[in-house]
This record gives sequence, C-alpha cells and structure tokens, in this order.
Amino acid sequence: MSQNTIEKVSKNLSRLPTLGPRAAKRIILQLCNNKEKDLTDLIQSLNELKQKVSKCKTCHNIDEGEICQICLNVKRDQEILCIVEEVSDLWAIERSGNYQGLYHVLGGKLSAAYGVGIDDLNINSLHKRLKKGEVKEVIIATSATIDGQTTAHFLTDNIKEYDLKVTHLAHGIPIGSELDYLDEGTIDIAFRTRREF
Amino acid sequence: MSQNTIEKVSKNLSRLPTLGPRAAKRIILQLCNNKEKDLTDLIQSLNELKQKVSKCKTCHNIDEGEICQICLNVKRDQEILCIVEEVSDLWAIERSGNYQGLYHVLGGKLSAAYGVGIDDLNINSLHKRLKKGEVKEVIIATSATIDGQTTAHFLTDNIKEYDLKVTHLAHGIPIGSELDYLDEGTIDIAFRTRREF
Repeated sequence: MSQNTIEKVSKNLSRLPTLGPRAAKRIILQLCNNKEKDLTDLIQSLNELKQKVSKCKTCHNIDEGEICQICLNVKRDQEILCIVEEVSDLWAIERSGNYQGLYHVLGGKLSAAYGVGIDDLNINSLHKRLKKGEVKEVIIATSATIDGQTTAHFLTDNIKEYDLKVTHLAHGIPIGSELDYLDEGTIDIAFRTRREF
Repeated sequence: MSQNTIEKVSKNLSRLPTLGPRAAKRIILQLCNNKEKDLTDLIQSLNELKQKVSKCKTCHNIDEGEICQICLNVKRDQEILCIVEEVSDLWAIERSGNYQGLYHVLGGKLSAAYGVGIDDLNINSLHKRLKKGEVKEVIIATSATIDGQTTAHFLTDNIKEYDLKVTHLAHGIPIGSELDYLDEGTIDIAFRTRREF
C-alpha cells in the first residue's frame, strides 16, 4: 500500500553498481524535489539510452548506431587492435588519449570461479576480424589479475595462427604512486623490466 | 557527435547525490547490458514516481496521493507532532519503528550561511495545523548542528502561543559507539544529562 512506488524505484536503483538503499532514497528525494528538471531530464535521457544505444556489431563497444564511432573512424589505425575485457576498460584507454588503433571488447574474462568459459566471451567475432588480415598487431589489455592473465595467455595461444605481433601493456609503478604503498609483485616486476634513462 | 546519448545520461546521473561521473558510467554499462530488465524497470518506475508521488499537503512528506499514508492513518497518535527538517529524517524515524505520532517536514533549516529564512520553511502550514488545537505535544527533531538548533530555538519561541508541551530528542552517546571516538561536546552533554540505573 504505502511507499509502493518509492519502494519500487528504490529497489531498481539499489540494483545498480555503487548504489545502496540509503543512496537510492537520497536520490529519490532529490528527484521528487526537482521533478520538472532532474526527474524529467533523467527519464528522457534513459529513454534515449534504451532506444538509441546498442552494442557495436564489430567491436562490442556501446554507442549509438550499429557500428560505433571508433570502428567507423577511418583516421584510426586499422592495423592495431586492442583487446579489452569490458567497455569501461575501452573508455579508460580512450580517456588516456593516446591510443589511435581499434578495440575488441571481450565482454569479460575467463574465470573458473565465476564459470566464465570461452563461449561466453566475444572470441568468434575476434577471429572473424583477424581473418580479414588487416590487423598486424594485437595488444592484449586484459586486467592484471589471475583471471585476466589467464585470458591473456589463452588469447595469445588462440590467435597464433594469424602470425601477428602480440603485445601486452607494461607492468610497473603507477605514475604518482609511492613505493611504500605498492605490493611486492609490482615492485619486483618493475625492477626486472627496468629501462635505461 | 559520438557518445552523445551516453554523455547526456552520464550528466543527468552525475547530478544526483552520491554519484559522480565514474559511478554514472558504471551504471550506464550495467543498464546497457540489461536493457530489457534493469533499464526498462528503472524507466517505468521513474515514470510512476513522476506521475504518482507528490508532497503531502498536510505534512510535506512525499508519498502517493494528496495526503500521505502517515497523515491518513487514524491509528497514529494525532496529539503528538514531530517536526523534522527533511523527508529523509522522517524516514529515519520511521525506520527506528517506535514513534506513533504525526510529522511536519520543514523542508530545511534556518541558515544564515545558505540564506535560508523563515519564509523558505513550511512554517505557515505548521501554524495552520497547530491552530486546530488537536496537537498537545510538539517534538522538535531538527539536527544537532548550529543551524538545526537555531531552528529549534526559533520554533520553540514561535509556537509559544499555543501552550503546548515542546520537547526535543535526547542528546548523548549513540548506541554501539566508543567514547574514544566521540567528540567532547557529546560526552559532556551525556555526563550532564546522565540518568540513574
């Protein structure tokens, strides 16, 4: 009876990442206090999101239209393909601003614990792209976790047949960090892969 | 051009409390990955929120219908009125589960710094309710900040004419907390208002 609609919105918001029931309630209050602007704008943009945005048929990025703006951009280097786990990784690389090649979003990483197997990832479509022969280098940018590295090793092996240059991102000390706060594994690998000035 | 819709949703989400641009992006990804369920449900419930939920004409709580379920509930004690700053405070008291009286939501607190004056708060409607003579006790539950206490003092003075019992919530040590982590003011007031076992 009471609080029905509010509870429903609260439940739907709480289901989203970074939000809990308390944050959901605060959001609902702000939306109710600014119905004409905040709530109306939000509903409208979510409707647009639903209607216009979908997964790119080539690289599985999300964008408006069937093929995303990155794949459509002929100025980007068509010979380099960066393989990432999720769209959020692609966005992170785009924010860093220097990479000018294309992407392929796997949609996850192999994981025994979470039951993610080869068929759950976008690997068939990767092969389809590589078979065309345009790509000369593949950068495997899966995460530096056990599952991420397992996926990287699997991919390296899996795309051997195309005779490509296969690289991975450098490990080392993150910019701005202090040694004192870093784990031993990172420090160790930074030592072993040290470079001359 | 590119990312237009996604940027728009991100902007609208980032405007909400507890959310920043990064959390907004994560939410968008989840919504795009679960369009049929999460996104559709969210849009639908937000539309309901917009259409059905409004401020109660009596106490300024938000709920479905013109008068909220708390004001409509004849089983609640009509003689006790708890004055709170925001609807979130009302919800917090309702969660604690014991209070059975009615509420009046001020919609803020007096604040010189933020330029909130008497006319910005729901004080006229408070007088309208008190004039009816049904209320015998007013509990002022404004926050324990300077502005909250200023508001409480102002209210106490402002409703003197009705000859009511006016109370405020007890200050003291919060349940589950350790003295070591509490401010001196709270410890001091807990000492001065100590009670016999």
